[in-house]
Amino acid sequence: MPEELTLDIESLEKAISTSNVEKFITSSEELHYADLATVFEDLDDQGRSFFTRHISLDNFPNILAELPGSLIEETLERFDKAAQKEILTKLLDDDRADILQDVKAESRPRYLALLQPEEMEATRSLMRYNEDTAGGRMTTQVARLSPQMSVREALDLLKENYDTAESLARIYVVDEQGRVCGKLRLRDLAFSTRSATVAEVMQELDITILATADQEEAAQMFSRYDMTLLPVINEYGVLLGVITHDDILEILEEESTEDIEKMSGIAGEQSEETYLNTTLTTHFKRRFPWLLILALLAIASGYVMLRYEDVLNSIFLLALYLPMVVAAGGNTGGQAAAMVIRAMSLGELEAGSTRKVFLKESALGLMLGLVMGSCIAAITLFILPLFQPELPIGVSLTQFTIAVSVALAAQITTSTITGALLPIGARAIRLDPAVVAAPAITTLVDISGMIIYFTAAQTILNIA
Amino acid sequence: MPEELTLDIESLEKAISTSNVEKFITSSEELHYADLATVFEDLDDQGRSFFTRHISLDNFPNILAELPGSLIEETLERFDKAAQKEILTKLLDDDRADILQDVKAESRPRYLALLQPEEMEATRSLMRYNEDTAGGRMTTQVARLSPQMSVREALDLLKENYDTAESLARIYVVDEQGRVCGKLRLRDLAFSTRSATVAEVMQELDITILATADQEEAAQMFSRYDMTLLPVINEYGVLLGVITHDDILEILEEESTEDIEKMSGIAGEQSEETYLNTTLTTHFKRRFPWLLILALLAIASGYVMLRYEDVLNSIFLLALYLPMVVAAGGNTGGQAAAMVIRAMSLGELEAGSTRKVFLKESALGLMLGLVMGSCIAAITLFILPLFQPELPIGVSLTQFTIAVSVALAAQITTSTITGALLPIGARAIRLDPAVVAAPAITTLVDISGMIIYFTAAQTILNIA
Repeated sequence: MPEELTLDIESLEKAISTSNVEKFITSSEELHYADLATVFEDLDDQGRSFFTRHISLDNFPNILAELPGSLIEETLERFDKAAQKEILTKLLDDDRADILQDVKAESRPRYLALLQPEEMEATRSLMRYNEDTAGGRMTTQVARLSPQMSVREALDLLKENYDTAESLARIYVVDEQGRVCGKLRLRDLAFSTRSATVAEVMQELDITILATADQEEAAQMFSRYDMTLLPVINEYGVLLGVITHDDILEILEEESTEDIEKMSGIAGEQSEETYLNTTLTTHFKRRFPWLLILALLAIASGYVMLRYEDVLNSIFLLALYLPMVVAAGGNTGGQAAAMVIRAMSLGELEAGSTRKVFLKESALGLMLGLVMGSCIAAITLFILPLFQPELPIGVSLTQFTIAVSVALAAQITTSTITGALLPIGARAIRLDPAVVAAPAITTLVDISGMIIYFTAAQTILNIA
Repeated sequence: MPEELTLDIESLEKAISTSNVEKFITSSEELHYADLATVFEDLDDQGRSFFTRHISLDNFPNILAELPGSLIEETLERFDKAAQKEILTKLLDDDRADILQDVKAESRPRYLALLQPEEMEATRSLMRYNEDTAGGRMTTQVARLSPQMSVREALDLLKENYDTAESLARIYVVDEQGRVCGKLRLRDLAFSTRSATVAEVMQELDITILATADQEEAAQMFSRYDMTLLPVINEYGVLLGVITHDDILEILEEESTEDIEKMSGIAGEQSEETYLNTTLTTHFKRRFPWLLILALLAIASGYVMLRYEDVLNSIFLLALYLPMVVAAGGNTGGQAAAMVIRAMSLGELEAGSTRKVFLKESALGLMLGLVMGSCIAAITLFILPLFQPELPIGVSLTQFTIAVSVALAAQITTSTITGALLPIGARAIRLDPAVVAAPAITTLVDISGMIIYFTAAQTILNIA
């Protein structure tokens, strides 16, 4: 964080803690709404009361839109009805819909009633879409022109509605039924002859998204096609709104966080609060389920070990490499899974590419297994003797070396393939690939690793 | 992928494989350059020759900019000098600089010599910045106005240079020394009186970034402050260029991929090729190092197990829970690390918050440890007896239960704290936090888990 910003924030926090109204107003005008929201979130109840009592109502709607969902209603309730009305009216329509989705269902009608009929209708229709869809992310505040208009009429119309469109980077041309038929930029109008028609200066519109499509699809299209705005349509081609790039940034952040959390065995919806502001209970609830499931699964590994008591007892030196062989499977499986999951998230792996992935990871697993096996063989043959290891009569160091290296190679090869294929399999049965990743794969290949290790030892070392 | 798009791509691929020039030209005009680049990347040498021979040179610069670095030079070399000149000239300046950074150093002067002196100078100056900095990401093609101009003059100037600015979403006002002093939108000009001065209609510019700042910082500012363009300045405040939102999307994707890969123990630079197009050797080189390091570390776990041979031999039933206790540490440590690393990536954890993280994770570790310990205690007391486990004389089921539950609780608590603090520690000594994540933490807490488990068993069960 730049030093200047830190100073501004500190000065605001001081104004709040000393209830210095004048200083609060000056300081709050210096800061961006995103920073003001962070400050607000970190305040105690008294501080928040002071904040809402003295903040400018021009500034507050943007701040409110940045707050986590759990804070929305209690914050709105700090204002009187007139102020609530002003705040809700000043919000961008997509932010307003999001905010009303965050308040309790029974409070929604009361807030909606504060709006003008037209705004109420627009907000209601936005709230119909699931939050994670293109429709749930779009704003309806988009500039629309009709193709017959002259450039002059178009410019006059845009001027009248100067600031109601969230962006004039792309302006859409729609026919009488509201179906989208072209796009143009403000510069195409500003620098054209005033008498030309909109149809003459517009360009063909090629890329659109259905309102019901998943937000991840919107993000992938946006970044693949370097878009400025993504127009959202219904099944009849009617323009409903646009998704702007700041929504896309949010989606990408959310989806990456989701992938990382799932891959680490963290369950449930990510919290909108920052890590530090999330309550202990929420953290606990999200981490406990997988921890328990994986622990129960791990008892299977222990059971395998119990069953091979005799093998371990006759050559206890096997314990030296047991954790290594088992863990190597988890590590290589985790790597393969991460690669495949990320490739899927970036839209690189179409449904038909399973065979290619299988061939690639089989070759890679074999290479990794052979090289790692050779490394461990070399260590066992040349370094282990320095520590005078105890081997029972009838088992040579060479035999022991072969057993552990073969086990390691087999474990790495099979685990690499398992790690790569499990996420693909998960997707095939419509499970989130990231859910089966790292911890789940690790636990599964731990079990197979135990079996591989003891079977190899038993077979190669001729233990009854 | 939408069906229509798949059909267009198939028709293009068929045109290439059957060398049907006419159909190739029609099909290629239907497709977006990003899709054309994907098709090109997947072609064999013959297909690529056909592609470059017949693609329109209007379209090809954009396709080239989408190709992975390793393909750039061999692709450029498929064209003659005149075509190379046309392609390089038509590229946006930031793409051109990126492309020239991807060709061999000795070829660069030859390509630069094809450009006009002015373009050559601009490209050279962009190439001076490291690829991962704000300067390395910016385009210099930004609209600049001076404050004394009238709105009419400004519009005329912009009209003349109609399409040379990458975006007119934000236009910057600079003084005679090139220092940035304000910003405005095209609509502010288009809808103002023509005789007003630029200084009258412009707004104050508050957020800028230094050219030498890290690209991750640029992405964080962009998404925090919902920006459209991020102006890049030097230490004197001179406007050098802007970062556009498509660059930011790329940065965010890169940084998320990097985090995920590092957290999964994958080393080195991510490849620009897709997962399937990356060679086996590259995959191998990136996965092998950590696999080997972690395997060697895991021998330490094995060594601990060897040392406690007597404990395990006297109560072999301990083997049943050994993998569970050890793995639970890795799982909970991995969760904590993922949470903390993600919070740091999103800029939520300032340097001073170590104490807060420590308190939070200690409380959480304790909660998780106690609850998990109780679960295992219940299972051991009520379910294990059904399987008639073998306990040596002198050790009661209750004692055994206490030993394993205490060990599990201790392992989970300490591992949670370790997992959260290691990434913070890494950052403090300027290592990438993600590097020490999941696999490394798992391996470390595996060792401590072994020690905790056997020590608890030895102490509580009174084994000599």
